[in-house]
Amino acid sequence: MTTPPPIEYADASPQVRAVYDDIKKTRNVPDVNSFWKYLARDPVTLKRTWESVKEVMARGALDPLTKEMVYVAVSVTNGCAYCIASHTAAARKAGMTDAMFGELMAVVGMANETNRLANGYRVPIDEFLAT
Amino acid sequence: MTTPPPIEYADASPQVRAVYDDIKKTRNVPDVNSFWKYLARDPVTLKRTWESVKEVMARGALDPLTKEMVYVAVSVTNGCAYCIASHTAAARKAGMTDAMFGELMAVVGMANETNRLANGYRVPIDEFLAT
Amino acid sequence: MTTPPPIEYADASPQVRAVYDDIKKTRNVPDVNSFWKYLARDPVTLKRTWESVKEVMARGALDPLTKEMVYVAVSVTNGCAYCIASHTAAARKAGMTDAMFGELMAVVGMANETNRLANGYRVPIDEFLAT
Amino acid sequence: MTTPPPIEYADASPQVRAVYDDIKKTRNVPDVNSFWKYLARDPVTLKRTWESVKEVMARGALDPLTKEMVYVAVSVTNGCAYCIASHTAAARKAGMTDAMFGELMAVVGMANETNRLANGYRVPIDEFLAT
Amino acid sequence: MTTPPPIEYADASPQVRAVYDDIKKTRNVPDVNSFWKYLARDPVTLKRTWESVKEVMARGALDPLTKEMVYVAVSVTNGCAYCIASHTAAARKAGMTDAMFGELMAVVGMANETNRLANGYRVPIDEFLAT
Amino acid sequence: MTTPPPIEYADASPQVRAVYDDIKKTRNVPDVNSFWKYLARDPVTLKRTWESVKEVMARGALDPLTKEMVYVAVSVTNGCAYCIASHTAAARKAGMTDAMFGELMAVVGMANETNRLANGYRVPIDEFLAT
Repeated sequence: MTTPPPIEYADASPQVRAVYDDIKKTRNVPDVNSFWKYLARDPVTLKRTWESVKEVMARGALDPLTKEMVYVAVSVTNGCAYCIASHTAAARKAGMTDAMFGELMAVVGMANETNRLANGYRVPIDEFLAT
Repeated sequence: MTTPPPIEYADASPQVRAVYDDIKKTRNVPDVNSFWKYLARDPVTLKRTWESVKEVMARGALDPLTKEMVYVAVSVTNGCAYCIASHTAAARKAGMTDAMFGELMAVVGMANETNRLANGYRVPIDEFLAT
Repeated sequence: MTTPPPIEYADASPQVRAVYDDIKKTRNVPDVNSFWKYLARDPVTLKRTWESVKEVMARGALDPLTKEMVYVAVSVTNGCAYCIASHTAAARKAGMTDAMFGELMAVVGMANETNRLANGYRVPIDEFLAT
Repeated sequence: MTTPPPIEYADASPQVRAVYDDIKKTRNVPDVNSFWKYLARDPVTLKRTWESVKEVMARGALDPLTKEMVYVAVSVTNGCAYCIASHTAAARKAGMTDAMFGELMAVVGMANETNRLANGYRVPIDEFLAT
Repeated sequence: MTTPPPIEYADASPQVRAVYDDIKKTRNVPDVNSFWKYLARDPVTLKRTWESVKEVMARGALDPLTKEMVYVAVSVTNGCAYCIASHTAAARKAGMTDAMFGELMAVVGMANETNRLANGYRVPIDEFLAT
Repeated sequence: MTTPPPIEYADASPQVRAVYDDIKKTRNVPDVNSFWKYLARDPVTLKRTWESVKEVMARGALDPLTKEMVYVAVSVTNGCAYCIASHTAAARKAGMTDAMFGELMAVVGMANETNRLANGYRVPIDEFLAT
């Protein structure tokens, strides 16, 4: 067996439970996503990652919906199936409509296309963009 | 010599000039970016790409600033230096402040980190996310 | 049908069997992984790939465990599900513990995050790093 | 101007100086790398990133040299020029010899090749690897 | 539910049906691939993407088989499972034999390997290649 | 200093010279590209990589021009500047015209765009493509 099973709340150490509790409270959900249950194999990474995510995704200069859509954009570009599924759901919960999702995908697709055209044609950076 | 030089307005064919004129008018700029001058080697791709970009980046369900920040997020993830430079400039022009750029980078960095953690721990998609 | 089936030992040509035999002997396993059975559709690539893998993964200045963990790091970064599964198993066999896997994922995640921050902030290479 | 200049120690806020001081002390270096001076535009990301890097890269189940080589492997795979330069230097400082670097590159190259062969041949995950 | 179902011909708007009809006629197939049925959620992207694909993949200076093999090469490099499946099928339909597929994969694997070696060894561009 | 200098013919060991000689003879060039001079730091990787490249890029079921264009497609997708420069030059030498390069870039750009749309819309593989 190469993948240890996820760690459920009932089987978690106090250290892991404390993180699960904070996730559940912060997000107002009855249970945490699988992502955290797999990360729980390494309690240090679990705690550090959750604290970073909580800090980074909090409302700030950017609103939560914009942040979730940016998260989806990166996950789609990287082809991370789990991340696309979970952050699309989070973006919807934060208010993303079907029309917004459609435009988001259009921008992501277009950016990936023109990224390659810029690389392929070896376009140097315009002087007025350089500094 | 392996990279043909970019095509300036003065040397452009009427077909290429028509695209340059539309870019300059749409964006209200005195000249087009290098990107278009290199693409002009293939007038069909120049025209198709510009028309797609114009359609995709127009105001719709998402505002232009959000679209430019998504573009930056994808370009940073792909490591396309030209695209990062030009779309960061466009995002600033559309209203991105230093604080917004800082948070954008924080989300992009975080998404790239957790994308790898999800892949590495081989997290299966939660049932409630699956459909 | 677009994917030809994998080639089992019983159905393999002598040329393919010779590679399978060398893999089984080198790795001391009763059968080869699916990877090789699919590559066997192109016996030249099968042979060349196996010989390269054998040479590259042999003990040298780096020990086999370090090499397998580097392999996992690259596969996680590329999001190659098959490669993550097979090389995580190989790394475990070579001695990777749960704690080592956890730290490995932490480094891979962190490297992917800071790679994007370096790109996004367009950090120039320090002079003392340049040569 | 689209890229604000890096923030030198003399011009840094007390909050940023505290991070710079901790980096200099932890790494025993007279000045911090450019990476941190660019990140300093966003003091929250600067602090969070440094604290994560310090925690992740500390000696644990994996030694510092292995961690730096994994960092290089990911950075090479992502094509992040700055990251390759800085973490190759760090790996050398941690004891990586020329022979070790050569083998590291050989593994990284090989992993990137076989990742694509596994994807291209659409190799399903072997049953004994699946769990 | 986070993924709206694909839109079948019977349920499609006249705008979407017009695109489906053009795809079926151009490709001489009884129904369109799933890809288009999912894109149909955003009729503007559906239409723009189909028109671009039709234009780009048409016979020109490159024959259709070469174009499909290039498409497969990119999709394998990006690890896009759907795209590998559909464009491998299209390449076969355009005349790709088993031997050609084997060599295609060999080149794609090799390019991904040497891309990383060039990055890792930080090879500067030869003067005679630079312009 | 973190990057050892490239190894010129005059300073090369007999083992390295033998590879350089074979490259020069096979490609009919007066000197080898920088790529090989940097790889020469690790003579085992130099030899193995050259022998693989020679075998993979030889005329077979696919002609050399198609192979070089596939190489360019992968290198553009990966954003490897050195590889784009050297293989675009090789493709031109093998007969790639400006029109062919333009179409190649158009296909590469399009494939990168639709790869993301397929991922973002989470398109399942059609039944008739699945086997």
